[in-house]
Parts: sequence; C-alpha cells; structure tokens
Amino acid sequence: FTEFQRTEHAHRRRNALTGDWVLVSPHRTKRPWQGMQEDNAWEVRPQHDPSCYLCPGNARSGGQKNPDYADTFVFTNDFPALQESTPEAPESVDPLFQTVAESGTSRVICFSPDHSKTLPLLSDAEMQAVVRLWIEQTAELGETYTWVQVFENKGQAMGCSNPHPHGQIWAQHGMPTLAQAEDARQREYFLNHGMPLLWDYTQKEMAFGERVVDQNEHWLVVVPYWAAWPFETLVIPKAKRSRLTEIHEAEQSSLGDILRALTARYDNLFHCSFPYSMGWHGAPFNGQDNSHWQLHAHFFPPLLRSATVRKFMVGYEMLAETQRDITPEQAAERLRMQPTTHFTLRQT
Amino acid sequence: FTEFQRTEHAHRRRNALTGDWVLVSPHRTKRPWQGMQEDNAWEVRPQHDPSCYLCPGNARSGGQKNPDYADTFVFTNDFPALQESTPEAPESVDPLFQTVAESGTSRVICFSPDHSKTLPLLSDAEMQAVVRLWIEQTAELGETYTWVQVFENKGQAMGCSNPHPHGQIWAQHGMPTLAQAEDARQREYFLNHGMPLLWDYTQKEMAFGERVVDQNEHWLVVVPYWAAWPFETLVIPKAKRSRLTEIHEAEQSSLGDILRALTARYDNLFHCSFPYSMGWHGAPFNGQDNSHWQLHAHFFPPLLRSATVRKFMVGYEMLAETQRDITPEQAAERLRMQPTTHFTLRQT
Ligand SMILES: O=P(O)(O)O[C@H]1O[C@H](CO)[C@@H](O)[C@H](O)[C@H]1O
Ligand SMILES: O=P(O)(O)O[C@H]1O[C@H](CO)[C@@H](O)[C@H](O)[C@H]1O
Repeated sequence: FTEFQRTEHAHRRRNALTGDWVLVSPHRTKRPWQGMQEDNAWEVRPQHDPSCYLCPGNARSGGQKNPDYADTFVFTNDFPALQESTPEAPESVDPLFQTVAESGTSRVICFSPDHSKTLPLLSDAEMQAVVRLWIEQTAELGETYTWVQVFENKGQAMGCSNPHPHGQIWAQHGMPTLAQAEDARQREYFLNHGMPLLWDYTQKEMAFGERVVDQNEHWLVVVPYWAAWPFETLVIPKAKRSRLTEIHEAEQSSLGDILRALTARYDNLFHCSFPYSMGWHGAPFNGQDNSHWQLHAHFFPPLLRSATVRKFMVGYEMLAETQRDITPEQAAERLRMQPTTHFTLRQT
Repeated sequence: FTEFQRTEHAHRRRNALTGDWVLVSPHRTKRPWQGMQEDNAWEVRPQHDPSCYLCPGNARSGGQKNPDYADTFVFTNDFPALQESTPEAPESVDPLFQTVAESGTSRVICFSPDHSKTLPLLSDAEMQAVVRLWIEQTAELGETYTWVQVFENKGQAMGCSNPHPHGQIWAQHGMPTLAQAEDARQREYFLNHGMPLLWDYTQKEMAFGERVVDQNEHWLVVVPYWAAWPFETLVIPKAKRSRLTEIHEAEQSSLGDILRALTARYDNLFHCSFPYSMGWHGAPFNGQDNSHWQLHAHFFPPLLRSATVRKFMVGYEMLAETQRDITPEQAAERLRMQPTTHFTLRQT
C-alpha cells in the first residue's frame, strides 16, 4: 500500500462544465505504439493555390467566384448542414422516437487570403482581423439565432479538407447538446456559489499555477483539470465576459497575442502543423439572464506522443468513458516550456 | 413552404439511451470530399505472423510468451489502463476539482489463433467460442467489478494497433459516464412505462421495419433511430435479457450467426475490412434491481462514403452536437441489401 499519487494511479476527474468524467491512466504512457501513423510532415505551401476553392479570385464548387479579398472573407457554406427555412416536424409523441426540425445557417470564414498561413504565422494585424471577424459574426448571427458556434477544424486528422486558413460558424435556433450541458452546469454553480463557474475556476487555476500554460493581462490559458485530449486547453478571459461580443478593444488585442502564442507552442511541441478543433462557447442569445455564463474557447488537439501518433477516442471511450494517458499537469508543463516564437521563424 | 421530410430537412433526433441529441443533415451528402483518405485496401494476412505479439507461441513486449492456444486466449494487458490495487484518493472538497481513484483490470481477449481472421471469416464453431468467451469473462469479472466493458477496436482508423483478431475488457468498480447515462435513462423509462426501454423499442422497430438490418429468432439488428455514426447498429435480444450471462444456449448460437452476418454485411458494403468499435452494455453488477436493463451491443463504424472516406466527429461535433449526413433509414436499407456471405468467400 502506497499513498495515492495522480501521476501514478488511475483516477477519474469530473468535467465541471459538462458533468462528465474522464479516466486518467498516467502509468499507461509507457506502452509501445505499432498502430496508425498520421501523415503530418511540415509542408511549405504557396501563398496562392489555383486549385484552392478558398483562395481569392478562385471559383468554388457551386460555381461562385471568390472576391479578391484582402483580409478576411465570409460566405455561406455551399453544402450547409443547417438551412434557413426548414418546415416544422410533426410533433413527436413517442418518447423513443423524438424528432425536432432545426433551421440555421453554416458559414465558412477565411482567416487570410494567404494560402500558406496558419494562425501562429499571422501578423499581429492579421490576427486582430480574425478576432474582429469572430466578434462581428457572432453579433450578426446572434440577432437571429440562439446558438452561434464559431469553430475551426485544422489539419487532415481533424477532418479538414482544405489547408487554407479558415474556420466555420454554424448558427441555429435550438440549443445543441453540449451547449445545454454547459448552460445547466454553469447555472447550477451560479445558483449555489453566486459567481460564474469559470470565473471562480480561473482564480483557482491562477493560484495553483500547475495547469497554467500562459497568461497576460486579460486572458488565461490552462490545460483544464478534466482535459480529455492530451494537450487540450481552455482560453478564458480574466474579467467577467459572457460572450465574444463583450470583450473590449484592449482585450481583443491581447487575445490575438495569446492565441498566436498558444498555436505557436502547439506547433513547436512536435515541430509540425499541430492539428486541432477549436471553438468558442459564450452565452446563448435567448433573451434570458445569462449571468452564469463565462466566455471561453476550447482547443481539442488529437496528438499524443509525436507529430504522427495521436490519441484515439474509440472502444472504451465510445462505450464507457473518455480516457487519457498523460496527466493534465504534465501536458501543461510541456506546453508552458515551449517558446512562443514559431519554430519556422526562429533564427538559427 | 413544403412539408417536413426527414430525407430533405435538417432535424435533431434524441438518443433515448443517453438523452443526447444528434443533428441529421440529409441534404449535405452531396458535398465533395478533398480531405483525408484512409489506407484501407484489402490485405491478405498470413495465418501466423512471427512479429505479432498476439499469435500463439510468440513473445509479448513484457517478455511473456503466449501459449499455443487453440481457440481463444485471455491475458491481462501488459499496459493496463486500470489496475487492481489503487489507493483511495483524498476526498475532493472543491466542486471544480473532483477526483476519485479508480481500480479495475484490463484484459486482452484473442478471438482466434489464426492471424488472418476477422469475425465474419470465423467458422460457426469459432464464432461460438468468441460468444462463450464474452459470457465467461463477464461472469468472472462481474464477481469483483461493477462495470465490465467488453469491446473490440477493429482497424487502424479505430486506433487498433494489431490486426490479429482480438478485443479487450476493461472492468472497474465505478460506473463510467456512459454507463451512468444509459442506466438513468433506462430506469426513468421503466418507472414511467413499466417495461424496459429497449424491449419496447425492439417491438416498435420490428413493426416499423425501415431501420431493421437483420433479425433471426432471438436477435434484432437495427440502425438506431438516433444513430450517430453513418452505419451504426444496435444488436438487441428479442427476449428480456439484462446481461450476456443470461442468454441461453440457442440464443448464443443465433447470436454468433447474426454477428457473422452483420460483420460480413459491413465488409461487403465497401469491399474492405470494415473498421469499427463495438462493445456490450449489460446491467451493472451492483447488487441492485436491474429490471430496467436490457442487454445490447453497439457497433460504431466510422466509414461514410467508401472504404477510404470516413465521418469525422470534430469541430461542431466536439463543441456542440453529433452530426450525421445520411439518414439512419438510408443506412439501414444499404446494409439490409448486402449479402451475408463475405465477398472474399463468394463463388465467381
Ligand atoms: O488498448 P489499445 O488497443 O492499445 O488502444 C486503443 O484502445 C483504447 C481503448 O478503447 C484507447 O484508449 C486507445 O486510445 C486506443 O488506441
Ligand atoms: O465542413 P467540413 O470541413 O467539410 O467538414 C468537417 O467539419 C464538420 C463540422 O465539424 C464535420 O461535420 C465533418 O465531419 C468534418 O469533415
């Protein structure tokens, strides 16, 4: 019998935002890997690719031609998952066969006209344009829709089919499953503690320090206590802000800084273009009191051991519970140690 | 304005087993795919591979030598995610930092000594041995643990690092997140309707027919109404059985039949070795009344359009809600139409 140590013993941690648990098996990192290797070599791309349907001036599959845009560019997805006009579905009477119709819109948001860029390679001004784009789009779509999901899938491993720097926004009238879960957990916490869950969490993580990856005057980056993906992070404002549309000009600028630094840390970790899905969660536009909400971005990157070996959320994870190998504290330390200058930009 | 049609209009369906919703976007199937292609060519493997750590007589990475097994073989994972003796974690006082220690065991279960096989290529007797193995292991581990998760990850796309036909069992004292969700939803339904949720569901799916893939005297295979993965299926006994350990001899035999047919249908669909994660859910061994539980197996296969193009559960799915393109009814029809003889075994 020895004492419990979270770097040695299997344990479960509760995701305070969703209520789900994650199994942490730190002793398992030693197992050899003979499985799939990602194709993830560093690739220098041209600034303009004539075959890219997101580059300025090129034609898209629907036949439309992109404008000669200079900074960012937004259009409605040619194959949208959500459409503006969807007739109501007949009421579901059987509890086992519940359906609701859903209407909304799906947009593609290009971050830069330059095909060769990714977030950590943008200039300060270019990154500011991305932050402004997220804010403006959220404000505009929030006029019509309840939930505005801004996100980016980066890299082939994350189902991204085009390396041109871009993200997406799916906006809809209903509250999707994970939005509902985060809304419920934050409301519950606010009722019991009188403060937003993530505001209290931020204070505590700053005091602990061990999961902090980076911080500046306005923003904190942590590997959350309950991280599912090996190098998952949470980006949280230090002030109480419920949505992207509430952040001030100085906060916008320092958000750009910390995101360029974070994505550079990711690329530097395994010297590759680090794949991830990231996205923003903010208070729904439902006309209700959302004092319990605190804005945040999630980064979910799949890589585990190297540029080519990822974590698979399969079998046990799909049937029972999310499982991770390295501890969140170990992941935070490795990210914290990375330089914030991108490895391709460093002097030798 | 037209009338709502579930093959045309985006809608959300509720997973009655977990309470989560899934977004169905049937009009989106037409989008072109320029992203990742899986490496999934049909591969003829030798019956014995000297470098395979699961073949009879070979050495494993821990140094142990496998016996010369003739049908199935079970051993404790050399790098287990769960271990038998884990000291208690100190009590978590802060609701934002909740931890519990977890102990359990992880076993590897080899389905056959023959390295070249997969489930649809097993003989009837060989398949019976696999069914018996699942049952015996569940009975044995249920003596000690609350939750016994039998599963198989098949194919590189599902994080499987060795093609030798095998599965795993992770057993533990706690109730993992998804087990908790299914337990709660089934209990709730039983209290309200007096019958197990999946028993009622089975009757209704047999009457509807449109999501049925296959059935025999004792078992039903359906693409569930709320399927997340394109060709996801649920295998359910027609009689009330709460666990694998309750199924009778005739049911064991017909289970083997229907599983060989199902996995052959999968391979036949895109003429490849169809990747999937599958696993069994049955009543927990918690000493309580589990009349609300009905045994079932989930198959979660990732392929969407072809042997090389899969569905990615990324961005929107990780941040908001699971999304699918083809409807469950369309998927069921395609699986139903497949022959049950494996394409490599057919006469030409
Ligand atoms: O145990 P294996 O086959 O090495 O590993 C595989 O299955 C496990 C259980 O589903 C997962 O945690 C791993 O991510 C996956 O690669
Ligand atoms: O819209 P894309 O980039 O073609 O598609 C990608 O992102 C979507 C939203 O996360 C997912 O539903 C798709 O599975 C994925 O391949």
